[in-house]
Amino acid sequence: MKIYELAQSPSARRVSIFLAEMGIDVERVSVDIRGGENLSDAFQAKSQNSLIPVLELNDGTTICESIAICRYFDESYPSKHSLFGQTPLEKAQIEMWQRIIEFKGLFVAMQAFRNLTGVYKDRETCVESWGEVSRQRLIEFLPTLDKRLSESTFVAGERFTVADISAYVMCNFMKNLDIHLDTGLPHLQAWFETVNQRPSVRP
Amino acid sequence: MKIYELAQSPSARRVSIFLAEMGIDVERVSVDIRGGENLSDAFQAKSQNSLIPVLELNDGTTICESIAICRYFDESYPSKHSLFGQTPLEKAQIEMWQRIIEFKGLFVAMQAFRNLTGVYKDRETCVESWGEVSRQRLIEFLPTLDKRLSESTFVAGERFTVADISAYVMCNFMKNLDIHLDTGLPHLQAWFETVNQRPSVRP
Ligand SMILES: N[C@@H](CCC(=O)N[C@@H](CS)C(=O)NCC(=O)O)C(=O)O
Ligand SMILES: N[C@@H](CCC(=O)N[C@@H](CS)C(=O)NCC(=O)O)C(=O)O
Repeated sequence: MKIYELAQSPSARRVSIFLAEMGIDVERVSVDIRGGENLSDAFQAKSQNSLIPVLELNDGTTICESIAICRYFDESYPSKHSLFGQTPLEKAQIEMWQRIIEFKGLFVAMQAFRNLTGVYKDRETCVESWGEVSRQRLIEFLPTLDKRLSESTFVAGERFTVADISAYVMCNFMKNLDIHLDTGLPHLQAWFETVNQRPSVRP
Repeated sequence: MKIYELAQSPSARRVSIFLAEMGIDVERVSVDIRGGENLSDAFQAKSQNSLIPVLELNDGTTICESIAICRYFDESYPSKHSLFGQTPLEKAQIEMWQRIIEFKGLFVAMQAFRNLTGVYKDRETCVESWGEVSRQRLIEFLPTLDKRLSESTFVAGERFTVADISAYVMCNFMKNLDIHLDTGLPHLQAWFETVNQRPSVRP
């Protein structure tokens, strides 16, 4: 089993933190995405979305999309402490928060970064004003998350879940957009400090 | 139990088709999103993301995000024919395709529509050139999906799954962007005709 990734990229970090929480070790292969290695025929033969991370099983089957990779491990090693939840209601609430973080936070942050910096302008048209709008939307989303974290210890409830992993990766990534967890977001900041202590998030 | 929705909207359609496939009937409450009813305090007290659809359980607990609502029903009524899959590998592959459709297709289509038409310009800044870029990216994604459907009967394999629901809703929604399944996409078109025959997709 192997994971193709760029270790410090947000999407790879989501999987790495998830696996560290589960105590699972998987061999890594580094892919130079900035240099366009993910656009090669060899990589695209493995990846259905042309992006990292990609999990390759021993029989050659590949799974891409960070959360689908996490799901594969979660389902392969069932546990009472699943990061995706246990009961139907818990599973739905965790998936809801994980999606809210992604659609209003992490994905918006990635769009802001790509469009403002033009880091992938060798392969995509960038629209700077969309980058600015996205950065602004991200800033406007943070108070919602702060409010949520005033009501519950973790993003989806009283337990640490995959939704916290997505939110943590998002908060780290925001630094690239010069957005910081200042004193206007006390609950988010306190939650971040708590998650930041978990051994799983050490790079 | 109740679902708050706008019946013809793509996100509500995903849940409705899913429930029809499962043979489950749930009371609906219509929300005038175009008129901004989802921005009211009353609605926001129910919805964590301020969007439709929202599922309200009998005890008042609410779940938003289309796929989280589908997951709730899938987990509440376990079945060998789960639209989210059965084995760890199947579940991961279905989630992978569902996410690829969403990130490269449905979400891109919705961004194109919102930014090109300005339909929600009372509540968000629109960037027309981002709408154009998004429309173009959607067009460029379709051949990938066509190729995939030349290799398998349905999007995630030989069975109809939640990934097909997302893809079907996307294909229908594309008409609003003047994108059509013309003869350059024979496999996608044939798959669309097949799915279009399912009783679950009748409005
Ligand atoms: N939705 C995907 C996103 C993956 C993604 O955006 N990967 C980035 C790195 S964070 C990448 O491969 N970028 C290279 C490129 O865009 O060409 C997931 O969750 O895995
Ligand atoms: N990621 C959400 C998307 C929900 C969504 O975009 N809903 C739209 C209708 S399709 C909405 O409520 N729009 C009103 C608005 O944007 O104010 C989901 O999957 O449920």
